[in-house]
Formats: sequence, structure tokens, C-alpha cells
Amino acid sequence: VENHVNVRFWTADGQGGRVEHEEAGYDGPQRTWRAPDGGGPMATAADVAELLAVHPTPRGVDRETLARCIAECFDCALSCTACADADLAEEDLPEMRRCIRLCLDSADVCVATGRVISRQTEYEPETTRAQVESCRRSCSACAE
Amino acid sequence: VENHVNVRFWTADGQGGRVEHEEAGYDGPQRTWRAPDGGGPMATAADVAELLAVHPTPRGVDRETLARCIAECFDCALSCTACADADLAEEDLPEMRRCIRLCLDSADVCVATGRVISRQTEYEPETTRAQVESCRRSCSACAE
Amino acid sequence: VENHVNVRFWTADGQGGRVEHEEAGYDGPQRTWRAPDGGGPMATAADVAELLAVHPTPRGVDRETLARCIAECFDCALSCTACADADLAEEDLPEMRRCIRLCLDSADVCVATGRVISRQTEYEPETTRAQVESCRRSCSACAE
Amino acid sequence: VENHVNVRFWTADGQGGRVEHEEAGYDGPQRTWRAPDGGGPMATAADVAELLAVHPTPRGVDRETLARCIAECFDCALSCTACADADLAEEDLPEMRRCIRLCLDSADVCVATGRVISRQTEYEPETTRAQVESCRRSCSACAE
Repeated sequence: VENHVNVRFWTADGQGGRVEHEEAGYDGPQRTWRAPDGGGPMATAADVAELLAVHPTPRGVDRETLARCIAECFDCALSCTACADADLAEEDLPEMRRCIRLCLDSADVCVATGRVISRQTEYEPETTRAQVESCRRSCSACAE
Repeated sequence: VENHVNVRFWTADGQGGRVEHEEAGYDGPQRTWRAPDGGGPMATAADVAELLAVHPTPRGVDRETLARCIAECFDCALSCTACADADLAEEDLPEMRRCIRLCLDSADVCVATGRVISRQTEYEPETTRAQVESCRRSCSACAE
Repeated sequence: VENHVNVRFWTADGQGGRVEHEEAGYDGPQRTWRAPDGGGPMATAADVAELLAVHPTPRGVDRETLARCIAECFDCALSCTACADADLAEEDLPEMRRCIRLCLDSADVCVATGRVISRQTEYEPETTRAQVESCRRSCSACAE
Repeated sequence: VENHVNVRFWTADGQGGRVEHEEAGYDGPQRTWRAPDGGGPMATAADVAELLAVHPTPRGVDRETLARCIAECFDCALSCTACADADLAEEDLPEMRRCIRLCLDSADVCVATGRVISRQTEYEPETTRAQVESCRRSCSACAE
């Protein structure tokens, strides 16, 4: 699906990032959320912030920013996986090669990044930053 | 964090599943969602349903149920990763061994399952069902 | 690459499995190994057996069989990732859809399975078996 | 298992890397390979080179070096997963926190890196380099 996922990523502080998805066909990230079949939202940054809140050794980072980054990494992994698959079903498949490849990469990189930044025990800033930087680049390439 | 994540899983139709997280300390999955720092929710089932809606070759499954399953797999992967890490920081770490191990397994199994069920192109029911069944068992063991 | 990877899988005891790769163009798994540029082999079952040998709480399974299963899962993940990518570059890409999709699934399932069966601490037979069964099915579908 | 896995990593050309594992208790990477129960080695760089050799659009990189990097990434992911698990079973578990955390990170980063560098279709040097750099840092932190 061409231009199906538009990912932007930035790092405020070298610690995390931000990925937003905008679909061709709807107006950006949904602000007014509507539950499917009556249920509630799932992997929200608020939920992740709850998880972080009960961590025995919290770091001095802003919990909500970190929670948002973590949720966005997993969300981006999900979107990129789905995007690669939707591309694979396109009629003009040969034109989708580059998009599929970059989406597969981003999906892998986002899963790894989301897991790494989820870990607060024995936090290691240098390695975390390098992985977040890779995630930023991969998502940028994907969004072009 | 003992009993930190309570995961339940069921399959309606052998096709997907349902995972819910309840934190010790808050009252189950949040129905009234509150955005952190003014932003919107991220990986919601509604977003995933949007992704599925633009797939070139939609299957005959209920899109919202499938979307929910996908989002819940990624959400569970995130929660289990964070749970294993929080356990690792606990003072009574030796008592956490089993919880850490099962959370690490569930995180891996949920990532794989979330990816597999995200793919609609050339859908293969038998392999999908086997992976969803493994996910159900892994989440059940984790929730005990 | 059509029929590029031929994966077979069996479980002796419900505990592990076996995946072999045969390339169109060479005669099955290499028995007489030739090091590239003078180096040694990498992820061999012998190496994995060494890792298992120093585990503080060994299980009563045959170490070499288990080591072989672990190495084969990671090997299969690698092969399926490379196979999906090679397919993506094929001229007759539209005919590759099914192969790509199944390879992507198998790669994900094999990574998860390899990780799960690598864990000996607090071993959980039921969940392990379910994941190995999923791996068997995914590899079988891929090999057809 | 303290000092259980000693990982070194270098990049010759920003394109790949090298990870070697030395176990406390045996003399470095095995040069004279001994098959467990009569079988052959599994994920060797030679096998990966075979996979790369049949790729429809080969890049101008040295195939054997690339094959070695790919195999080493998957091998390192396997070793780090097994190492984190062996640490989890140690009696002096609280002293293992840092090692477990870094091994879990490296395992995730190595899987992502191994997958990214396996992809030759629509190769993207900048994103690949960033991920390889993250892998180098993660493995270095793990090896300290």
C-alpha cells in the first residue's frame, strides 16, 4: 500500500523517540478514539506508564515520555509488519520491493528497540542510544 | 513484580485470541482512557483495523476481532518484556526466576504470533492456528 | 528463489525438532565443512552443546539433541529471512507471494522457538511443546 | 554463568561485523569441529554464503565476509539468549542482574541486525550501518 504508513521519529534527549503513523485515508493519529466492539484501547502509553510506575528501581526519566516511546516502537513494528504484508498483496508488486524491504527492516529494528528501551534494570545509556538512533534512521528511510 | 501482569487468552474461532492485562494496583484494562501529556493513544485495535481495512485482499474474518488480537499480541509482548525486567530488579530476585522465564517466553511467542496473524496475504490457517495455540498456552502459563 | 530452501522438521520426543536445509544446487547439508576465508564454523550444535554443558541446572534431556534443535531453529530463521529476501528480488515476483509470506512466518516462528527451547531454567514442557509444534507446522508449510 | 560468553565485535567496513565467543572452560572458537552424534554443522558461514550465492541481485560486497557476519549475528543471539538463561539459574543471581540485562539486549539487537544484513534486495547502506553500529556497542557492553 503505497504511502500507507508515514513514520516520523525524533529524539528529544537521545533517550527515546517518537513515531507517528498517518494513513492515507484518515486524518492522522486518532485523537478521538472509538473502541472497536465496545472494548478499550490496548497498548497505550498510559498503560505502559502504569507498568513503569511499579518498577522497583525507577530511573530519573520522564515516565510518560518513555512510555510513549516504548508503545510507539511496538506500534511501529506492528504497522510495518502489516504494511509489508499489504504491499505483498498489491497488483503492482514489483514497484513495492523497496517499501517491503524497508518495512521488514523497520519492523525488526522497532521490536528490538522497543524491548531495549523497556528495560530499566541496569540501564546502559550508550547502547540504548545507539539502538534508538538506528530506529530513527530505519523509520526515516521507511517514511520517505 | 509479583502478579504484575495478569494475562488471559481465549480463542473464539482458532483464529485469534484475546489477552488482557490487569495490574496489581489498578482496576483492570482501562476503559476510560487518559492521554499522557495530551497525546492520543497509540497501538489501539481501532488503528489496526484501519490498517487492515486498506489491505488489497481482505479475508472474510471480522476485521475488528482480528485487529484486537493483533494489537493484544504486541501489547502482551511489551508487557511481558517490561514485567521480566521489573522482576529482575526485585529484591527477592531468586523467587522471580519462574516468572522471568515465562515472561521472556511469552514475549517471544507473542511477537511471533502478532506478526504471523498480521499477515493476510496467502493466509495459511493451519500454521496460524498452531502459533495462536502456542500463544494461548504461553500466556496461560504466564498468568498462573 | 524457488525451492530455494527445503526444510524438514521432526520431533523425536515432543521436546525439540530437526530442520534441514537443502539448496537447489548443492547436495544437502554439508558434511565436509570448508571454512570461508580460513575461519572456523559458527553456530554449530557442538558450540551450543558447550553452552548447555555449563548451565547450572541441566535438565535430563540429551544435550546434543537439544543443542542441535536450538542451532537448527536459529539456522532456519536465518535461511527463511534470506530466502524471503531473495524471492523479493526475483523477476517473477508475483509468483513468489506465497513463498515470501510463509518464509516470513517461519523466520518469526523459528526465532521464537529457538529462544524458548534455549531456556533451561524453570522449564515448562507444555508451552515448549506447543511452540515446537507450531514451528514444525510452519517449517512444513514452507517446505511444500 | 559469569564470563560465560565473551563477545568481540568489529566492523571492517561499516557493513558487517564479527562476533566471537569464547567460553570459560574451552579454548576459544572451535577450529577443529567435531560433529555431535555424527551430524554436520548447521548455521555456518559457508552455508550462508551458499544462500547469498543464489540471490538474484547480488551486491558487490565480499560474499564470505557478509555470510560470516550474518551467521555471527544469529550465533550471538543464540549465545546471549542461552547466557541470560544460564545466569538466571545461578545461585548468586542478584550479581547476575547486569549480565542478564545486557544479554537480553544483545540477543534482541543481534536478531534484528542479522535479519537486516541478510537482506540484499534494495540495500540501504545508512540504515544498515546504524544497526550494525548498535550491534557492535551492544556486544561490546556484553563482553565487558
